[in-house]
Amino acid sequence: MALRTISSQLAAQLDKELMGPEVGFTLEQLMELAGLSVAQAVVKEFPYSESRKSQVLVIAGPGNNGGDGLVCARHLALSGFQPVVYYPKRTTKTPFYAQLVNQLEFFKVPVLGAGDNWAQYLDHTKTLCVVDAIFGFSFKPPVREPFGSILEQLRHTQHELPIVSVDIPTGWDVDEGPADSDCIIPSVLVSLTVPKPCATKIDTRETHHYVGGRFIPRDFALKYGFEPFPYENLDQVLRLH
Amino acid sequence: MALRTISSQLAAQLDKELMGPEVGFTLEQLMELAGLSVAQAVVKEFPYSESRKSQVLVIAGPGNNGGDGLVCARHLALSGFQPVVYYPKRTTKTPFYAQLVNQLEFFKVPVLGAGDNWAQYLDHTKTLCVVDAIFGFSFKPPVREPFGSILEQLRHTQHELPIVSVDIPTGWDVDEGPADSDCIIPSVLVSLTVPKPCATKIDTRETHHYVGGRFIPRDFALKYGFEPFPYENLDQVLRLH
Repeated sequence: MALRTISSQLAAQLDKELMGPEVGFTLEQLMELAGLSVAQAVVKEFPYSESRKSQVLVIAGPGNNGGDGLVCARHLALSGFQPVVYYPKRTTKTPFYAQLVNQLEFFKVPVLGAGDNWAQYLDHTKTLCVVDAIFGFSFKPPVREPFGSILEQLRHTQHELPIVSVDIPTGWDVDEGPADSDCIIPSVLVSLTVPKPCATKIDTRETHHYVGGRFIPRDFALKYGFEPFPYENLDQVLRLH
Repeated sequence: MALRTISSQLAAQLDKELMGPEVGFTLEQLMELAGLSVAQAVVKEFPYSESRKSQVLVIAGPGNNGGDGLVCARHLALSGFQPVVYYPKRTTKTPFYAQLVNQLEFFKVPVLGAGDNWAQYLDHTKTLCVVDAIFGFSFKPPVREPFGSILEQLRHTQHELPIVSVDIPTGWDVDEGPADSDCIIPSVLVSLTVPKPCATKIDTRETHHYVGGRFIPRDFALKYGFEPFPYENLDQVLRLH
């Protein structure tokens, strides 16, 4: 069956409607569920074992995609992993992002900032995977610093150190796919709510694809032109292939 | 092993600390996770099947316990159940409770108010279980109307229509247990974060016991005098017995 997707423009409209006065979701609620679903995808792909490495590097961008990453890191800490967060550009748009950082400190998760030596964690002998929570569906090129250099480093390590991208592989055009051959190739893509068109460009032999962010009813999905995904029980994530 | 519990007073302090400036959780986050965990307990106890009844009556009280019930109802709707919510006394303390009701209407979940015929749903041929989200750990007797009459009706139906209590079986003394033989006996108790002392008074032959509301690190649990619970993977709920 063809992959169901919606454009970046429709995705923005969907998000706006979810948080608008009629539906009334708060950012805090949606981000908690989205971040939890990404953490569940990580756990499904890389099951925790006491006897092996459990470090996960989460790279958080300045917007909502980054927020999903911060929540994901906390849930990973709850399930035995050792997340380390690199969060070089912090937003002050709402105090909630600072609260997400406080919550991580509560769990003793290191949160590195600009100038910290984050690249030491790109070590596949110690780190299980990297969560790319840099940019989401509202990303418009070009990638600015420091994220350009970060992506370049991730490209160099991606063959030993798998990347889990949140919603969009950072740097890809949301509607068109990878802009050039220099783009990162994630091992796992976790689409949120519904895949965006770039997800049709992943090579299913190298990238596992999940959908997460389970918070809309059937009618609403149909209104946006896609069939709901057949999640099991109360799983927050579903593997598509 | 003895059941780990904390008193109602310590539970209030723990909640306050979680939402205080140092840790920085928001009510929206904690309620989302708590309500999701209760929904997961319902699904574990009464697995959804297309071929049998799937109606769940959620009775929501005026405070945070009620809010957990509203969230639980939404997650049940997401997983195929048909929740009906009875919410006779609504709070206007924060607009968030009204938003939780909007979210339920988004899922076409009926939300009944004072004066509506809620008791028609106490029908064990159609309804799978009742979620008692009336009062939580800050409850002080006596039970006031309309909740006294509601509890009386639940007592009459509890042998055919199982009750799932959120954190505290409503009407029980939080620290002492059932106040008299007229108290409801839930079939399932879902303690949130950590059981309160009344949970030691349940008869394990008639009540299954879960813990949910998974959002604190090990050190914090130890500070409050209990060992963390051994949740599996990213399950939000754990069956204790």
